[in-house]
Amino acid sequence: MAKEIQNLWREVRELSLGTKIDRLDSPPSPVKFLRDYVSQSKPCVISNAISHWPALKLWSDPAYLSGALSNDVVSLHLTPNGCADAVTGDKDLCFASAHVEKVLFPEALKAVQSSCKGLKVGYLQQQNDCFRTEYSTVALDCDGEIAWATEAFGCSPEAVNLWIGTDDSVTSFHKDHYENLYAVVSGEKHFLLLPPTDVHRLYIEQYPAANYSYHRDTEVFKLEIEEPVRHVPWSSVDPYPSPENEASERLKYPLFFNGPKPFHCTVKAGEILYLPSMWFHHVSQTPGNGGYTIAVNYWYDMQFDIKYAYFNFLQSLSYKSSLLNPILSWREDEDRESSDGEV
Amino acid sequence: MAKEIQNLWREVRELSLGTKIDRLDSPPSPVKFLRDYVSQSKPCVISNAISHWPALKLWSDPAYLSGALSNDVVSLHLTPNGCADAVTGDKDLCFASAHVEKVLFPEALKAVQSSCKGLKVGYLQQQNDCFRTEYSTVALDCDGEIAWATEAFGCSPEAVNLWIGTDDSVTSFHKDHYENLYAVVSGEKHFLLLPPTDVHRLYIEQYPAANYSYHRDTEVFKLEIEEPVRHVPWSSVDPYPSPENEASERLKYPLFFNGPKPFHCTVKAGEILYLPSMWFHHVSQTPGNGGYTIAVNYWYDMQFDIKYAYFNFLQSLSYKSSLLNPILSWREDEDRESSDGEV
Repeated sequence: MAKEIQNLWREVRELSLGTKIDRLDSPPSPVKFLRDYVSQSKPCVISNAISHWPALKLWSDPAYLSGALSNDVVSLHLTPNGCADAVTGDKDLCFASAHVEKVLFPEALKAVQSSCKGLKVGYLQQQNDCFRTEYSTVALDCDGEIAWATEAFGCSPEAVNLWIGTDDSVTSFHKDHYENLYAVVSGEKHFLLLPPTDVHRLYIEQYPAANYSYHRDTEVFKLEIEEPVRHVPWSSVDPYPSPENEASERLKYPLFFNGPKPFHCTVKAGEILYLPSMWFHHVSQTPGNGGYTIAVNYWYDMQFDIKYAYFNFLQSLSYKSSLLNPILSWREDEDRESSDGEV
Repeated sequence: MAKEIQNLWREVRELSLGTKIDRLDSPPSPVKFLRDYVSQSKPCVISNAISHWPALKLWSDPAYLSGALSNDVVSLHLTPNGCADAVTGDKDLCFASAHVEKVLFPEALKAVQSSCKGLKVGYLQQQNDCFRTEYSTVALDCDGEIAWATEAFGCSPEAVNLWIGTDDSVTSFHKDHYENLYAVVSGEKHFLLLPPTDVHRLYIEQYPAANYSYHRDTEVFKLEIEEPVRHVPWSSVDPYPSPENEASERLKYPLFFNGPKPFHCTVKAGEILYLPSMWFHHVSQTPGNGGYTIAVNYWYDMQFDIKYAYFNFLQSLSYKSSLLNPILSWREDEDRESSDGEV
């Protein structure tokens, strides 16, 4: 089985994906977008698609945002380490969600800007259509949908989410059951991408759900397992292990570290990433002038079609790791071929 | 492995394909065609897409065709049994191709009309863009391409083929590496369709290529293995075995006969079938008024994308048939659910 699955990783790259994420200088027509990207489950980065948004100029200024949203209550996510929705723990691993507070936007933005990793990290996000609810006051600074994508998908977005964070916040590897158009408004987002074919390389397992709670008086986070226990399938692969952990992580996750490198792409302010449904993504960020990164993402309903059925089939197979040598030798090929556009 | 592959057959039907081929009353827009059919690898039958073709009125009259093409030399395919490009033989099976003669169209059409199964069956076809070469005299009776498909695929057809035959000719199960728009001009074509996910159910194996040669003086066909020997991967499943063979065929091909039924659709004069690349199809026909069936098909280049990579991966796995019982019980479910639109 291992050999066949490795061939799949290789073939999808050789036939279709190549070694770099495509870049388009202007928005594609709906037909081109469907034919060359959606149908093929292939990401791309699009420039000059949101140049007309007032947000591009206005939102790098914290004073503008805090003024415009001075009376709006928003969801502030707090963690000690910037890792919300991630596998955490020293011995007993769990899937940890952030402590969520509803606070006025100016206070929330200050909490984000004063994030300090190891103590308290704030991230403004809520994946429940928050841009059209909590942030409706500044809705007109962006488009409500991406016109050519709406025409291609044949429907309006199911959810539009806003993300304001700093380089202290990282989103761990996961996939979404949505087609995603991810527009960066301020700063930069750094994506590591793996196609759905590479599911075994992420070592997805079931972890008990847990929640951080933050106590203002003691300034201490507590992490508690949800009761009744609920399990969440997630990846524990950290693509950027600290130097002291690197050797052990490479031993723990050989399919990830020794297989073909994830696609890497940086999406800058003014650019949109098309992230196809079911693609695994890991996201980090670099703040812009305002001291934060802002993105707005549009989730469109995906089709549960033959690609999805193939993915479920692949995921249902167990990878037998008896054949590690072919992977190691392949890795050398890859390195020789190209180190460009990858991690 | 058997269980996982069976789940794939089931899931692609439950999630995406349903139990019947979609029917559209008018040509889809390029965006709808890409989104709902091409991207999902899902067939559909389209009515009222070729109503403006002069061929629809003219070609049912053999006198018109023979007059218009009186000086044109065409490729006539001859076999003793109407099974060209099919696995044949009693003991030593081979992949048999027709005897091909270049004759004037009026003589060729007569050979088709006077076909007699068991003696000599004529089929006018040549899958090498013959409509635009051998039949260019009547090219204006049809459109040179299907406009909305050309816009969707972003290119003109790679080949346009003409097919004139009778109910003596049958095309055995196979797949093409093209997107196919199959327009019926006279009579009816009957398709049995299986999605690419069902590849193991067709028992594809390598057979030595062989060619019929027909000797006019003795009126005898000879079938000879090509030298040097060349092997062709093909399916030997006959979905319509004769009553005396049925029991043995069912034993030989349990995955075909006991799994979910192939999709069945009849495409009538004036209709187009969109047959996605890599779908397996078996084709039979019913003649129209002229005593023959005529179809024109447009082959567009396919994308070698993630769907194709998944297919190759699936095909590379061996199906272990140790689990026959689940299939048998499933078959009963299917029968209960729907017998409509299927074999």
